[in-house]
Amino acid sequence: MRRIYTGKTKDVCALDDGNYLLKFKDDVTGENGVFDPGANTVGLTIEGAGRAGLRLTKHFLEILEEKGIPTHYIDANVEEATMTVKPAEVFGNGLEVICRYRAVGSFLRRYGMYDKEGQPLDAFVEFPLKDDSRQDPPITEDALVVLGIMSSEEYREVKNLARKIGAIIKEELAKKGIELYDIKFEFGRVGEDRKIALIDEISGGNMRAYKDGKYIEPLMLEKLILDA
Amino acid sequence: MRRIYTGKTKDVCALDDGNYLLKFKDDVTGENGVFDPGANTVGLTIEGAGRAGLRLTKHFLEILEEKGIPTHYIDANVEEATMTVKPAEVFGNGLEVICRYRAVGSFLRRYGMYDKEGQPLDAFVEFPLKDDSRQDPPITEDALVVLGIMSSEEYREVKNLARKIGAIIKEELAKKGIELYDIKFEFGRVGEDRKIALIDEISGGNMRAYKDGKYIEPLMLEKLILDA
Repeated sequence: MRRIYTGKTKDVCALDDGNYLLKFKDDVTGENGVFDPGANTVGLTIEGAGRAGLRLTKHFLEILEEKGIPTHYIDANVEEATMTVKPAEVFGNGLEVICRYRAVGSFLRRYGMYDKEGQPLDAFVEFPLKDDSRQDPPITEDALVVLGIMSSEEYREVKNLARKIGAIIKEELAKKGIELYDIKFEFGRVGEDRKIALIDEISGGNMRAYKDGKYIEPLMLEKLILDA
Repeated sequence: MRRIYTGKTKDVCALDDGNYLLKFKDDVTGENGVFDPGANTVGLTIEGAGRAGLRLTKHFLEILEEKGIPTHYIDANVEEATMTVKPAEVFGNGLEVICRYRAVGSFLRRYGMYDKEGQPLDAFVEFPLKDDSRQDPPITEDALVVLGIMSSEEYREVKNLARKIGAIIKEELAKKGIELYDIKFEFGRVGEDRKIALIDEISGGNMRAYKDGKYIEPLMLEKLILDA
């Protein structure tokens, strides 16, 4: 087993059988000690954040697998904060996919001339490129195709999957009286037939959730969902 | 006749018959005295730039009218640097439409991780919102619809028109051995049936054109095209 990538919130190791081991860290994204799922820097370290993020990821990925949604998930060891996954090829050098139900975060900042905070967005999907030095610029279908990052067919499939998965997570949260405002995914091509699958994690760090109009921090979200 | 808008490179007056008079100024966009068609500030003033821009706009708009492309154009007085146009309703608070044949300018800066300067882009169309304070953020079809700026049908029509007009201008330039790299349009809803038409100008200030691999300044471009 050898470490092949050191990420902001996870490390990645290659396993001898060709699969990968993701090690969830206690570092979370944010700025100046304040958590922000849209930030590109590690803002703070919270004891137990890695295990909590993995516990929620395992919970959601297993629900998705049951519903026949393709993911890279194999299994997870919550105590060790590790998850075993299938190898995946990312789009370009990494592409995020955000499904938005209400206007907050970068969407609100970018289109502030036209929207109000919390305005409904009807499962709007956008594709920000992972490029810290350019503040993750959103990219259109046409630009993804012309730059060779993905095909039109892949774009449509990823967009449909993002909406489908977003709706499942939104419904899970609603069972606990929590409203999902937005959620960030990553997809990749998995297996020999390069089938599109959800990769990475689904934890509090990937979404903005509100209860009674108040934003819920990731660790609290994990408690509300998993501790009945 | 009363002035209703003072723009960076044009003033707009309302005429008594309901039409509008555009007054082309000698100010051009750029920064620190250097012309840049993508800039949001007036960078320099060039004696005669207004008349030259109008001369080229008149030339191109009359070619487009002949080919049946809807525009807001009625007539022009080059000596006075004025153009009479039909009233138009813009999309939102103003939306630019750029048709790109080669990667330069903001496209190159934004997607620099994936493209090379001058890389062919196959008539790629993008829609930057006119919002100086947010550096004219590009917007996707889905975001235009969810924010109520235009419908999907209008998006498709504008995109088709931009490609059609871009191809005509590109061909006109090619007759003089000049290659069009990109061109910026503005569209609006014109008349009682709110038909989509090209509005604003088509001059050297709206495009990047190259000859023998060298960028041509707007005034030189106007000379090369109009002075046979």
